[in-house]
Amino acid sequence: MTTTTQDTATLPNGLSVEDARAEAARTYELDRTHVFHSWSAQGQIKPMTIVASDGSYVWDGDGNKLLDFSGQLVFTNIGHQHPKVVAAIQAQAAKLCTVAPQHANDARSEAARLIAERTPGDLNRVFFTNGGADAVEHAVRMARLHTGRYKVLSRYRSYHGGTDTAINLTGDPRRYPNDYASAGVVHFNGPFLYRSSFHAENEQQETERALEYLDRLIQHEGASSFAAIILESVPGTAGIMVPPPGYMAGVREICDRYGMVMIADEVMAGFGRTGEWFAIQNFDVTPDLITFAKGVTSGYVPLGGVAISEEIAATFNDRAYPGGLTYSGHPLACAAAVATINAMEDEGMVANAKRIGTDVLGPGLRDLAAKHRCVGEVRGLGVFWAIELVADQETREPLAPYGGSSPAMNAVIGACKSGGLLPFANFNRIHAVPACNVTDDEVAEGLRILDAAFDVADAEL
Amino acid sequence: MTTTTQDTATLPNGLSVEDARAEAARTYELDRTHVFHSWSAQGQIKPMTIVASDGSYVWDGDGNKLLDFSGQLVFTNIGHQHPKVVAAIQAQAAKLCTVAPQHANDARSEAARLIAERTPGDLNRVFFTNGGADAVEHAVRMARLHTGRYKVLSRYRSYHGGTDTAINLTGDPRRYPNDYASAGVVHFNGPFLYRSSFHAENEQQETERALEYLDRLIQHEGASSFAAIILESVPGTAGIMVPPPGYMAGVREICDRYGMVMIADEVMAGFGRTGEWFAIQNFDVTPDLITFAKGVTSGYVPLGGVAISEEIAATFNDRAYPGGLTYSGHPLACAAAVATINAMEDEGMVANAKRIGTDVLGPGLRDLAAKHRCVGEVRGLGVFWAIELVADQETREPLAPYGGSSPAMNAVIGACKSGGLLPFANFNRIHAVPACNVTDDEVAEGLRILDAAFDVADAEL
Repeated sequence: MTTTTQDTATLPNGLSVEDARAEAARTYELDRTHVFHSWSAQGQIKPMTIVASDGSYVWDGDGNKLLDFSGQLVFTNIGHQHPKVVAAIQAQAAKLCTVAPQHANDARSEAARLIAERTPGDLNRVFFTNGGADAVEHAVRMARLHTGRYKVLSRYRSYHGGTDTAINLTGDPRRYPNDYASAGVVHFNGPFLYRSSFHAENEQQETERALEYLDRLIQHEGASSFAAIILESVPGTAGIMVPPPGYMAGVREICDRYGMVMIADEVMAGFGRTGEWFAIQNFDVTPDLITFAKGVTSGYVPLGGVAISEEIAATFNDRAYPGGLTYSGHPLACAAAVATINAMEDEGMVANAKRIGTDVLGPGLRDLAAKHRCVGEVRGLGVFWAIELVADQETREPLAPYGGSSPAMNAVIGACKSGGLLPFANFNRIHAVPACNVTDDEVAEGLRILDAAFDVADAEL
Repeated sequence: MTTTTQDTATLPNGLSVEDARAEAARTYELDRTHVFHSWSAQGQIKPMTIVASDGSYVWDGDGNKLLDFSGQLVFTNIGHQHPKVVAAIQAQAAKLCTVAPQHANDARSEAARLIAERTPGDLNRVFFTNGGADAVEHAVRMARLHTGRYKVLSRYRSYHGGTDTAINLTGDPRRYPNDYASAGVVHFNGPFLYRSSFHAENEQQETERALEYLDRLIQHEGASSFAAIILESVPGTAGIMVPPPGYMAGVREICDRYGMVMIADEVMAGFGRTGEWFAIQNFDVTPDLITFAKGVTSGYVPLGGVAISEEIAATFNDRAYPGGLTYSGHPLACAAAVATINAMEDEGMVANAKRIGTDVLGPGLRDLAAKHRCVGEVRGLGVFWAIELVADQETREPLAPYGGSSPAMNAVIGACKSGGLLPFANFNRIHAVPACNVTDDEVAEGLRILDAAFDVADAEL
């Protein structure tokens, strides 16, 4: 099903396929000579070159057109090369690329206003960072200084970033080689009914038991020792486990009871991904801090940040906040954020993400789950869905072990790509995370390719 | 001396002064309502708005034209709004804004090649980050995993970034509120003859005693416990103390003797600032890792990274490097790096920086030192100079205390600004850090303004 563009054709960015192939060859050679890649054994990777992109599609170095169901790393929430955002970046580059963070700048002020207008409650102040990891680092620092406490609670099955404190907060195997047991983090199990830590049989039980367990853990650890609970409003890479009704409100109540800061990590889930501007708005809960990145600019220019409640901001009104960075509130990045948020607003992308989840992608994935032996569960909301692949639907044995891969999973991933779809894969899961402005037809195309890929896995069982 | 642009004039980016003032008023109001600033007591700051910039100048919200002797935060190494780099950003935005780090991209490959060609020795691999702090975090992680050791040596009077590990490596007061004594860092005194920790009377003594002290410290701490020494090749914000002859070679020798990784932090000193591509090249020393940011794109798009020796890269050839980030090797940022490096090369900016330091700025600052009672010492190289202001030339009592400010220092800073110069100030120092492509006339203008500002301080003594 792969669409190989003809040599005579041109890609959306004007590159001829012939030129794209030459560019890709040189790109690959230099990459393997000089580029050190994230999270990889450098000698064992063969990166795919991407030479062009447009809307829901990317083109690889052979001219193959691929439906991007990965959002790259779940960040191109407005799709690729949105013309309004490209134009805004070009205009800001011509006007003023950069100023230092201590000065004021119109793009930064406007981005802060647009974000503050969309956050819940009184999270009216925005500290800008370069990405999600440093947003998390600074949110935890604010919580520690605000409370005068050090320890932080964080979920297992979570990802919070790659810098030292952020990776130690993380609850996935990427933490292990970075854990020197000095980061002050205590991990806990969150709700995940399909693989319940609490032997629960329904969502209500899962909520009740997960909260009871969290409360007990806090008492055993010392209720007055925790600065914060950090958790993804909807865990992302870890598996898109939408919290059951009542859970997030229960966490809010626990934070209030023990004087802890509630940090909602929305680096992946924020900016429309779940069909709301922020995922926490699905649960009618207001955290004290929200970390964001990715969707705020759809990754067109690196940007992250922390949205801060008035109460926590006031802690640093007369006392200096001891943190910062050279590119905090970078004008080019903030101009991209302004254009991204306005495009999402003007084109109804957040509502589209919700509709796609409810009416198109959710039902389509549930049909695949009913049809395929290899699918254990599908779950999600908006344009944020996980397909849990299993070797056995009864025992729920994952198709690849936690933290690992398997020939069967690799076969599914390979079938997606050869079918013309770029998937997001993690352990035994495929995530379907298209852009918020994906069309019904594009979703239908993606579902057809996934259907065929799951046939490959079924055949392996 | 401030040049206030007339209301009828237009700024270099086409904004009329009237529009600029209206924009600045709105910018300021939104900033004070919504923007949380780095390193600040939020209620006590009055940020200056910057509405336009061009070459060596910026324009504030009142239409005042200011000679930028700050490089903002010492990062606009090619000056402001360089047309070739602006055009390259616009072209890359049109072509392809972003891809995920696991894919390959031509802008990233080319940026890595250009950087690797300029680094000393066999530092041929580049891991891209968003800025300097995460570059430092990852360099330390690589050193820890490469050596199997945890502790790291770092200088007092240093700055390494704002995330938790980076700020704990830092040797300046910004570390204190972030230090929970768990980061595994041991700080040491480096050479700084003007305020010698070693009672040295000349550079040779300072080098010998600083190295002897470092060696003794390592033995007392346990020679086999250190993963790395990290130090700025020329310390930046801490005071631009150029290491005396033999010091950096001595540190290299100590690293070799004890099996420690030598990390040269070139976030501020790299990319032409010292009159060489990398500051370490002034000392004929090859470190194992170089961290960079700022100058690599002149801050036009956020970018940082680690240049890695073949030996350390090989450690992660078959074993996964446990670190990464969403925007590693971001195409737009890498395209800005490519254009920046090519512009610096084509226009001879690195050589210009060296010439300016040797023939124009250095001699001019020494003339000011000879003339003004408030100047204790000037030191530096290239376009990287510190003016150490003192209350008393004999006792060398600083004009503001370490970690603090004073009315006299504030008067100097105010006189710079009202004179039409944007300074970089830290404690009792003014740094003269213009762009690498600054002209002789611009330097002369800056020296005249500094001369008048130092008159103000002289009068306070």
